[in-house]
Parts: sequence; C-alpha cells; structure tokens
Amino acid sequence: MLEISQRGRMMASSPIRKLAPYAEKAKERGIKVYHLNIGQPDLPTPEIALDAIRSIDRKVLEYSPSQGISSYRKKLVDYYDTYGIEVTPDDIIITTGGSEAVLFAFMSCLNPGDEIIIPEPSYANYMTFATCCGAVIRSVATTIEEGFCLPKVEQFEKLITPRTKAILICNPNNPTGYLYTRKELEQIRDLVARHDLYLFSDEVYREFVYSGVPYISAFHLKGIEQNVVLIDSVSKRYSECGIRVGALLTKNVAVRETVMKLCQARLSPPLIGQIAAEASLDAPRDYSMDVYEEYVERRKCLIDGLNKIPGVYSPIPMGAFYTMVKLPIDDCERFCRWCLEEFDYEGETVMMAPGTGFYTTPGLGYNEVRMAYVLKIEDLKRALVVLSKALEAYPGRQE
Amino acid sequence: MLEISQRGRMMASSPIRKLAPYAEKAKERGIKVYHLNIGQPDLPTPEIALDAIRSIDRKVLEYSPSQGISSYRKKLVDYYDTYGIEVTPDDIIITTGGSEAVLFAFMSCLNPGDEIIIPEPSYANYMTFATCCGAVIRSVATTIEEGFCLPKVEQFEKLITPRTKAILICNPNNPTGYLYTRKELEQIRDLVARHDLYLFSDEVYREFVYSGVPYISAFHLKGIEQNVVLIDSVSKRYSECGIRVGALLTKNVAVRETVMKLCQARLSPPLIGQIAAEASLDAPRDYSMDVYEEYVERRKCLIDGLNKIPGVYSPIPMGAFYTMVKLPIDDCERFCRWCLEEFDYEGETVMMAPGTGFYTTPGLGYNEVRMAYVLKIEDLKRALVVLSKALEAYPGRQE
Repeated sequence: MLEISQRGRMMASSPIRKLAPYAEKAKERGIKVYHLNIGQPDLPTPEIALDAIRSIDRKVLEYSPSQGISSYRKKLVDYYDTYGIEVTPDDIIITTGGSEAVLFAFMSCLNPGDEIIIPEPSYANYMTFATCCGAVIRSVATTIEEGFCLPKVEQFEKLITPRTKAILICNPNNPTGYLYTRKELEQIRDLVARHDLYLFSDEVYREFVYSGVPYISAFHLKGIEQNVVLIDSVSKRYSECGIRVGALLTKNVAVRETVMKLCQARLSPPLIGQIAAEASLDAPRDYSMDVYEEYVERRKCLIDGLNKIPGVYSPIPMGAFYTMVKLPIDDCERFCRWCLEEFDYEGETVMMAPGTGFYTTPGLGYNEVRMAYVLKIEDLKRALVVLSKALEAYPGRQE
Repeated sequence: MLEISQRGRMMASSPIRKLAPYAEKAKERGIKVYHLNIGQPDLPTPEIALDAIRSIDRKVLEYSPSQGISSYRKKLVDYYDTYGIEVTPDDIIITTGGSEAVLFAFMSCLNPGDEIIIPEPSYANYMTFATCCGAVIRSVATTIEEGFCLPKVEQFEKLITPRTKAILICNPNNPTGYLYTRKELEQIRDLVARHDLYLFSDEVYREFVYSGVPYISAFHLKGIEQNVVLIDSVSKRYSECGIRVGALLTKNVAVRETVMKLCQARLSPPLIGQIAAEASLDAPRDYSMDVYEEYVERRKCLIDGLNKIPGVYSPIPMGAFYTMVKLPIDDCERFCRWCLEEFDYEGETVMMAPGTGFYTTPGLGYNEVRMAYVLKIEDLKRALVVLSKALEAYPGRQE
C-alpha cells in the first residue's frame, strides 16, 4: 500500500515555512513585508566572486571531484589558518551547503535510536536531518532570561544515556546569536572527552562575532581532535546562500572515509559554486570589514529599538545576525500569522520566525520570535515602528 | 565510544572509486588513460547556458526557492510535454542533481526494512541511498546473454513480500544501455498496480534512445499515476554534470509534501545551476541533433569494435551511452586494476568500470565491465586497440 515513510510523517513542517503562503497573500494585497524571518543577507556577494562566474571559459560544465576541487581545498587551509584552525586539504570535504555537511555527518555517525544533545532553542533543520537518520534529539534548555548561556554541566550529564552519541553546538548561535564562552566550550570539551562523544560544531557564523575576544573553534579544544566534526558554509560569510557550498572538516579518518562514501554516491558538489567560493577567498579585506561594520550597526539599531518597545525584550546577541525576542503575546505562531493576514501599518507589515519552531520541548518559545538583522538600517527602523504598532493592535496581547 | 554508524559501515566503496588511485598513478608514470569508466560526456555544454552564466547581473547570489525557481519549473512543463509527459509546475520539484531526487524519494517512501526490487545490473549508487534509509534492495537478475531484457513477471512475483514497497527502473538503463519495451513496461505497470507499489523511474537518459520507437515514460503508464515518482537530471542531456540540477516529478501529493520537507531542510537547489538549466531549454534544435548523432556514431564504433575482438561480446545498447561488455577474463576487478597498474600499449591504457560493482548478487558480473561511449571517435578507436592488446597480454585470460 502506498504510504509515506514514518520518518517522512515525523518531520515537522516548520512554522516559518507554514507562514510563507500568508506572506505571499499579503504581497498580493499590495502590502510591503519586512523580512525579519530569514537569514538571507541583502549584502552584496564579493565582486571578485561574481567576476569569476562571469568569466568562466569552460566548454563543458563537468563533474568536480566528490571531495571538492583540490585548489579550493588547498586555499581553504590558509583561510582556516587565520582562525588558528590547523587542517590539511585532506581534512576538508566540500559539501553542497552546510546542510549537506550536517546530513552526512549524522548519517555517518548516528544509528537509529542514537541520541544527540543540542542546546535549545536551535536551528530547526537539525531536527529534520536527525529524523532522516532515525536519531533522537535531546534538548538542553537555555532561556532568554539567562541570555541563552549554557546550563551547568549537571544538566547535560542528566541527559546522557547509553544511547548518547553526540553533542551539537552552533557557535555563534542561530537562532539566539549567543557566543559560547571559553569556559562553556571547555565544559563541553570535558563532557565530550569523558563520554567519548562526537562533537558536531556548526561554525558558519564564525565571521560574525561582536565581542572583541578571539573566536574559539571546536578545533581549538585540546584532547578531542578525533571527536570533532566541524560544519561550515560560505553562504553567510560572502552572501552566497544560493551557490550551495559548504564544508565538513574532521581529523577523524573513519568519519571522513564514511562521509566520502556518501559524497561519491551524490557524485559532486556544485562546480560553479566552488569556483565562486574559491574566488571569494581573495575578496579584499575591505569587503569583510564593510560587511562586519554593517552588521554591528544593524545589531545596535535592532536591539536598541526592540528593547525600547514596551513589553519587548531581546538580549544582546554577541554573534551571528539573529536574535530571539520576547514579545507580549499569547502565541507566536498566531501573532506572526496575524501580522501577515490581518494587520498592516500604512501598508506595511513584518514577517518573523515563530519561536516555537526552534524548541523541541513543547510549550517553550510560545512568546518568542527569531529576528534576523539582514535588512538595511532604514528598513530595520521602519520594521521596528511597524512591529510596535502591531503589538499595540494585536488582540492576543499579554503583559 | 566513537563509532561509525552501521549504515556507514554497510555502504560499499564502489569498485570504480577504488580504481581511481591506480589511474592517478598511471598518469603520474606518463601513461595516457582512456576513460571508458565514467559517464562524463566530453560534448560541449550548450553555448546559451554558458552565456546565461556569464551574463549574470545579480548583486546577491541568494537562496532560490526550496522547490526550485518558478520560471524554470514552468518552462520544464513545455519540455516534458514534448515527450507526452503531462505535468504542472506544482508536480515538479527541482533537486540538487538526480542523486538528491533518488535520496529524497527513498527517504520519503521507504521505512527501514522495506524492500525495493531493482533489475540488476544496476546503478551502484541506488544501493548507497537505499542503505541511508535502511531499505533493502532485492535484485531481479537480467543477463548479458539475454541482452538484459526483463525476466518474466513470475521472477518479480517471487521476490514480492509484505515488505516490498517499490520497484525501481532506470530507462534507458545505466549500466546496460537497455531500453525497456512497451510490453515490459506494461508488465511492470500491472505489478505495481496489483501490489500497490511505488514505481521509481530514473529517466535521465530519455534523450538517448537509438531505436526509432517513441520513448515510453513511466508517466505514460495508465492507472498508476499515484504510484510513479520520476527521477530526472539535466546532467547528461546538456553535458552539465557539474551544475547539479535534477528533478523529482510526481502526481502523488503526499509524496511531494514529504519530499518538500526535505527540500526545505536543505534550503535550496543551486541557483546558478538552475539559471544554466533554464537557459539550456532554449538551446537550438541543432544542439540536441548534433549530440544525438555523435552518440549514434560512437555507439556503432564502440560496439562493432568490441564484438570484433576475440572472446569479447557486447549486446547492442538501444539507449543511454553505456554498454555492459563480456570479456575473456577471470576477474573484472583484477583486470581493470591490472590495466592501470601493470599494462600499457605504446604508453596508453584503458580504464573501465568493473561489472561486479553493478550487481548485488555475489558472483555475478565477474567477467563483465561497463563502458561509457563518451569519448570522441578517434579516442574510442584507439581505446579499442589498447583493450585488445591488454586482453592478449593479460595473465588471467580465460576463454
């Protein structure tokens, strides 16, 4: 009998995706929608990357190697070196976006029934990829009241069972913008070493750290070199989300060999994307500085503006370009939908990602939303005005 | 304890991939290697696709929609219509190569322990993707002696158990080049209908049919509209293997909705690849005709040449650009490796894909290899000379 697979039925449709049709309808009604909901930067891709694409002189767009183009992997070694991440080209596997790196890491390391501990709120797609493998996510709660810092090690220990196989962190964090401290990372290192777990470390927002302290990668943590699987992507770094180029890095040869079996089965990562990504490594220093400064401004604009609105609270995110925001509302999914379906202020409205989509524990995040500060300052300012008007008018307001 | 997942351990390293280092070493010794082993056409990508890439005027290479660019999906409707495949843009999901379409189809439809029936020899990567889902491949044997035609329906019926969930066909076939007849396809349709199975139909070689009879798609088979999941790719059609653009088509809404959950988790298919693929649909008719005629010539050259070599036999493939060839050898893996490691004729050798890699039944294919006729005529001719010399010199020759 034709049936959908159990994993297929288990996968949640994300609350963000469920909102998309309402945004479409709002636009059809002529309403301008400020997209605070998605991490799609509006900043330009480096000119040098666009030039590399425009000057492609190949006759045949052929398969690239399953592990990724060799010259690109070699050049990445220097890039990682600037962050004190010591790798060889062999340690690097180029993937189709960071997403594929997550999926292949899970596929290679996790059996059905295995458990991964992830601090929540967390990036919703980890859940889908875990479900693909039959793995189970056990969430460690972090809270907006405590600024999303990691709980004490005892909270992690409580979750560890004979089926625990991995810890996953995203640092700087999507959706909270939280940057793990050295102390927190050392606590995680000790846990990983004590229980011999994999540490999946999603570091795609490495460039976006606003604290002034040096960035700490999972690759810097001593004694767990065989445990670490690093997830990376050029999407956010160079505003190249569409080219689908990421990477999986690990010193663990068995993991690499297993990931490579999957890479060979899918043949190759995108050729033109890799050409653009390789060229991006030569983007002038000004490019990164301009991008960085722009995000610093936007962060200030959004967070200051949010905390001025009565009943609204956002911690100050120290990295990435997201923040989780507490709103005086009854139900974030209802509110986000209402903003698109029933509300406008002078012909404009806002789209946000409902907080519940980032929690696996039922009931958490109901009065939170995630916002991305990927819009230009004047749009962010206007979006803040629109949001404050929406909160005044919303029938489900709760203090 | 750090362990590789069971599925990771189960995945075979393909015999083709295992040969790659020997080919590298042969090249390092200055030996020219004719690549008959891989389906990477040397024919040019359509100029109109390369132009579309070169004239990209975007400032930001942003995410494309998870289902694929809308204008591309609309245009594909017309393309499919020329093959009598009636679909709407909603029926089409753009994937990252045909590979992702296979993986997502399996993920959406198959539970661990579910069985898929596939005629063997078959494309080795189906196995890896099935292993990813915990699904089991049950092979129906086809033989070189019978030209790889499908066995009688009783052979299929014998394999059907309560766990049988799907039949997969690749038509025209990789690796055999076999083109299923109307009668065979109707037999499969009846089986699929009788047992209410999914029919995964990999039709990426649709353009390459040398029989003169109209192409029959799984979408043409009446009464199983809800059962069919079609796998497609632009890789071979336009010599665009590197852009990673494929498609999954189905009228089954539940399957589509499930596949879309996976598509949303991986965010989007490659943007620039889709731009190239969309442009390729406007390639002049001459382009397809030239490509087609070139393959007709190559097919004749290779098959005639093979059958002239004493002890060698290849059926005439009616589609795709592969053929399975029977050689007078003891062990195809040993022979293919020997060609790269120990043999050359006037500084040249050949690389072929060992037949065993395409069979799941142990012992089958030991004296077969797959060859792709993706090289130009003069290279094919030379490769045939080198092959015949190799067979004369090979110490494991068996009549």
